[in-house]
Amino acid sequence: MGQPHVHHIRVRYGECDPQGIVFNAHYLAYFDMAITELWRAAFGSYQVMIDRGVDIVVAEARVRFRAAAHFDELLALEIGVTRLGNTSISTAHRVMRDGELLAEGELHHVFVDLPGLQKISIPDWIRQPLEAYAIDADESVVAGA
Amino acid sequence: MGQPHVHHIRVRYGECDPQGIVFNAHYLAYFDMAITELWRAAFGSYQVMIDRGVDIVVAEARVRFRAAAHFDELLALEIGVTRLGNTSISTAHRVMRDGELLAEGELHHVFVDLPGLQKISIPDWIRQPLEAYAIDADESVVAGA
Amino acid sequence: MGQPHVHHIRVRYGECDPQGIVFNAHYLAYFDMAITELWRAAFGSYQVMIDRGVDIVVAEARVRFRAAAHFDELLALEIGVTRLGNTSISTAHRVMRDGELLAEGELHHVFVDLPGLQKISIPDWIRQPLEAYAIDADESVVAGA
Amino acid sequence: MGQPHVHHIRVRYGECDPQGIVFNAHYLAYFDMAITELWRAAFGSYQVMIDRGVDIVVAEARVRFRAAAHFDELLALEIGVTRLGNTSISTAHRVMRDGELLAEGELHHVFVDLPGLQKISIPDWIRQPLEAYAIDADESVVAGA
Repeated sequence: MGQPHVHHIRVRYGECDPQGIVFNAHYLAYFDMAITELWRAAFGSYQVMIDRGVDIVVAEARVRFRAAAHFDELLALEIGVTRLGNTSISTAHRVMRDGELLAEGELHHVFVDLPGLQKISIPDWIRQPLEAYAIDADESVVAGA
Repeated sequence: MGQPHVHHIRVRYGECDPQGIVFNAHYLAYFDMAITELWRAAFGSYQVMIDRGVDIVVAEARVRFRAAAHFDELLALEIGVTRLGNTSISTAHRVMRDGELLAEGELHHVFVDLPGLQKISIPDWIRQPLEAYAIDADESVVAGA
Repeated sequence: MGQPHVHHIRVRYGECDPQGIVFNAHYLAYFDMAITELWRAAFGSYQVMIDRGVDIVVAEARVRFRAAAHFDELLALEIGVTRLGNTSISTAHRVMRDGELLAEGELHHVFVDLPGLQKISIPDWIRQPLEAYAIDADESVVAGA
Repeated sequence: MGQPHVHHIRVRYGECDPQGIVFNAHYLAYFDMAITELWRAAFGSYQVMIDRGVDIVVAEARVRFRAAAHFDELLALEIGVTRLGNTSISTAHRVMRDGELLAEGELHHVFVDLPGLQKISIPDWIRQPLEAYAIDADESVVAGA
């Protein structure tokens, strides 16, 4: 098994709502940033993938909110690969603050060619480096959470 | 059983990404707008609830993406209540364009008091009018989609 | 002289910040929506322009904030054309709530061809219908504001 | 005279529009982040200010767009203080990519007390550390741009 990739961000003022906490939709933007950073760590960048005629399309997203994040807090965006299918990838995500779980969820993406946007098998040069970030799906769920 | 509530919006330019389609995180903002409009239809407005010392906090969100929405398209945001628990509500959402399903999902919210933010039972003046929008959880899933 | 075009929107929860008011950056998104609606009123839609190989690029934006907008309020987005140059357009914007001025500003856009993105003269089929929305630049400034 | 403060960010996918470039409204969010980081550098954090009963309200914003920023690019957000009035502050902003100017602009904020939101004189513990970031208003404009 591999290990999750971690990227740190700071909560922006405009991401917080009148409850004083990060508005829920921004967590999907956070998950998307984790994908971008995982791509960078695994094989250079998202653009490398585009340049080679490959793109990804999100098929499903899920978030469970555990505790609130506030303006200017430093968050750790964790991402691990829970499944590498023939044409699709599943990633598990956790948003942490000082070791505390704030949100967790999953994304499912399908690989497509460019510009046709037809489903394709994941190329080896993408699949192989991503295997270093494979985690067990159960591990990504915090016990008792 | 009741019926879903429907609210129409137009896709904004800034909501679309370099793929030319609505960026996935905005669907949670769309679901949130559907909640706001359901509240308006059911008992006046979100503010009425706040003024009476009640608020809601999102606990879980899920979206399945079926087809892409593009700039300036007119979308129908459908929302139905699939479960009214003691302290929580589940809603099912569909984003439609001319009868075509673009995305569907669920939100789970917990009711809390203000300013304490402690879980509370759903007040009757909220529960009763929401029952008119109760739908079967299975109905909210489009067959074969 | 012509008259401003008016489009109504409702403030979304996720657009409001911890001060409980619309976060300042969203006013530029509001101005952009006013452009989209002016285009619709004047010659059909933004897409009509794209389909004919023309696009616009923003060169400058300015906003003066007079009073705060809050969640769920109904706003009127006013837009008038203050200058139609050879290759550029200036628009004046006002965000109103029940007759009260909340924000005002200006946008300057340049017309470009597609896909080259080179400056072009404003085509007559765009220029002519926009003249109906010409307003005096001074008029757009509220006296004493 | 002092020196501008610089903070680096990476362009997010969801910030880019169908033209493949950062949507104009996000530049005001970038300017806002520059303010947050200047506050951190000058006297600890935005929260320190809130905790001492002081807040700021934006009165005017201006952006001139020079060149486009794209997904995943690394941007430098420069901010300098061009005027420290009795109750207000003016800041000049530049968004740079590898030494190239992409956008520049100004923000004007007014200091208010909390929770009253009435105008107040800038406290010395804010004014003094900000003086280290004072720049000439003309310097902030790139010659020939």
